[in-house]
Amino acid sequence: MTIITLTTDFGLADGYVGTMKGVILGLCPAARLVDLSHEIAGQNVAQAAFVLSRAATYFPAGAIHLAVVDPGVGGGRRPLLVQTPRAFFVGPDNGLFTFALDEPGSQPWELNRPEYWLPRVSRTFHGRDIFAAVAGHLARGILPEQMGRPISNPVRLPLALPVRHADGRINGQVVHADRFGNLITDVPADWVAAGRWRVEVASREINGLSATYADAAPGALLALVSSGGTVEIAVREGSAADRLGAGVGAAVNLEPLD
Amino acid sequence: MTIITLTTDFGLADGYVGTMKGVILGLCPAARLVDLSHEIAGQNVAQAAFVLSRAATYFPAGAIHLAVVDPGVGGGRRPLLVQTPRAFFVGPDNGLFTFALDEPGSQPWELNRPEYWLPRVSRTFHGRDIFAAVAGHLARGILPEQMGRPISNPVRLPLALPVRHADGRINGQVVHADRFGNLITDVPADWVAAGRWRVEVASREINGLSATYADAAPGALLALVSSGGTVEIAVREGSAADRLGAGVGAAVNLEPLD
Amino acid sequence: MTIITLTTDFGLADGYVGTMKGVILGLCPAARLVDLSHEIAGQNVAQAAFVLSRAATYFPAGAIHLAVVDPGVGGGRRPLLVQTPRAFFVGPDNGLFTFALDEPGSQPWELNRPEYWLPRVSRTFHGRDIFAAVAGHLARGILPEQMGRPISNPVRLPLALPVRHADGRINGQVVHADRFGNLITDVPADWVAAGRWRVEVASREINGLSATYADAAPGALLALVSSGGTVEIAVREGSAADRLGAGVGAAVNLEPLD
Repeated sequence: MTIITLTTDFGLADGYVGTMKGVILGLCPAARLVDLSHEIAGQNVAQAAFVLSRAATYFPAGAIHLAVVDPGVGGGRRPLLVQTPRAFFVGPDNGLFTFALDEPGSQPWELNRPEYWLPRVSRTFHGRDIFAAVAGHLARGILPEQMGRPISNPVRLPLALPVRHADGRINGQVVHADRFGNLITDVPADWVAAGRWRVEVASREINGLSATYADAAPGALLALVSSGGTVEIAVREGSAADRLGAGVGAAVNLEPLD
Repeated sequence: MTIITLTTDFGLADGYVGTMKGVILGLCPAARLVDLSHEIAGQNVAQAAFVLSRAATYFPAGAIHLAVVDPGVGGGRRPLLVQTPRAFFVGPDNGLFTFALDEPGSQPWELNRPEYWLPRVSRTFHGRDIFAAVAGHLARGILPEQMGRPISNPVRLPLALPVRHADGRINGQVVHADRFGNLITDVPADWVAAGRWRVEVASREINGLSATYADAAPGALLALVSSGGTVEIAVREGSAADRLGAGVGAAVNLEPLD
Repeated sequence: MTIITLTTDFGLADGYVGTMKGVILGLCPAARLVDLSHEIAGQNVAQAAFVLSRAATYFPAGAIHLAVVDPGVGGGRRPLLVQTPRAFFVGPDNGLFTFALDEPGSQPWELNRPEYWLPRVSRTFHGRDIFAAVAGHLARGILPEQMGRPISNPVRLPLALPVRHADGRINGQVVHADRFGNLITDVPADWVAAGRWRVEVASREINGLSATYADAAPGALLALVSSGGTVEIAVREGSAADRLGAGVGAAVNLEPLD
């Protein structure tokens, strides 16, 4: 009973996601299907990569993660399968799986065996014709090496990494704004576990990290450790994204308070 | 094969709901997961309580209802499990389960056994770290008394109850506005089963209850018995909420027409 | 392990879809539930018919397609079951299943046996009280002839068919605008498989069909074969619906380029 998660920018109005599920269940009736998000902003590969990387770690070993945000569909970009020690990732080779590729022991495969795709492959919907079919075959026990060939140069997103200076200062950035308007950064919680910190974002300063939303007054701007294990900027019972007019890419700087 | 329903204000864009499902399936691979709503307005506990109470009654006995609308996450509010003769409810102790607590034979438990939670509990996402884990354990057969202690003072929402006067008049209110703009009240259908009624809402009068939408002309304002068994104000092929500028909390008064 | 798909205009906020799933699982706990769309525009039967017809073909034989877009609920319209050689369709008799009725070997049944409905049938929510119950019974093996009577005059949508003239010109129309703003027409791909074509839509001309989105420059208007096998008008990395101010019903004319 294999789990297959789905992440796309297809929305839920047009039946495209349901169609992919029909293909999967036709190949592997016992697959367990779990939607992660279908409201990724149109063609925003980085957003999908973030959402998927955060969620995937909470699934049991052996899960298959199907993700289709695919601006290059029908062009030259390769179809990809990434195998990691705990999971499989299936989708276009455009950086979506950068986080999985960075895991020790991961192996990328170019999907090059059309006998595991739908008989007729369109030029505009590889999510249905290639990726859903491959995920279905994988769930019923077909091996990556039967469906593809190993490659060494998969596409990676150019991720700016947070920086920790010798004097203690930290430069990071916002990597995700969620539906509550919480701004999630790339600064690891363990970098700020000790001491007190001043956080600077969008020309505003926040003194000290809160333990939780409830520690701030309603409407107050605060910084805390997010549920994903990095520093987050929030407004209690409000939206930090709206308050600060800031979003993905905004600089977030921290310095130790003595 | 236990059913677990999910109700949250998380939206579907960020992968938070999918993450909870990953936790559940890791603990109980056979659980059947059913989404009730993830578009509860941010932190609107009363709306979630209404939607859940209306839907839960249509699920088979033994279903587990996981609901997370949790403005007090990380603060002092208790994690709760409510057992009723037909179902289980898991989520924060903030009134979400008022309707279940009012059922004869219901028993609330404070969840106080962290060995049934995820190993690392964040301060901002108890839906994943506590409630999804407890629902998963419950689905695989762990008993409420193993995961919590009985309590007698769970939080209840202060619900205004509809009133029936000696002269026959009824005072109720709108308790939900659905996506069609139908205004659903708390006035029970059996209070108005006999006789004819004048309905007054937002300074408008409606004479008589219709049997169904199709009994009114397109665009007409009407009152009828809703699918949940209470009086509803609607506009045929339109939105009563928009027409009347009215929403949750609006007074709805009925008087018998002789 | 029967698949039941669901297509409605209910949205996902109010718990109505989840309620239908509760009814189904109460009758057939092993049913596999797959959402096609719940964001059909309110009471837009034609849109639902299109989305369902495109998706249904990708499901394995024996699938049950439950669809509820039901402006006439509670009035005189009949509850319907359509059996085709590969699938079942359950919902109101208002044209939703026109495409299934046009399949050779299809048989429509009027659902007229209330013992297979919920004990109490509301006048406003037949999706729950009749259609979900019938789908559940069907999934557990009850036959159409036990639940209904054969009829010969089900309601069909008045579909304008595309026309192919003796001189080669083609007149079609837009039948769906998806969430990306792609305009999907009713002109079959095999009508334009040979030769080169000029496409005229909303007073704009497009010379030649592209093979895929990636063949056009970002922002360019193009015509291509859609994933559903008909001609589609698109803007690469943009919205053709917005660019052209055109939607469902817009004329699309093609003429051969010599």
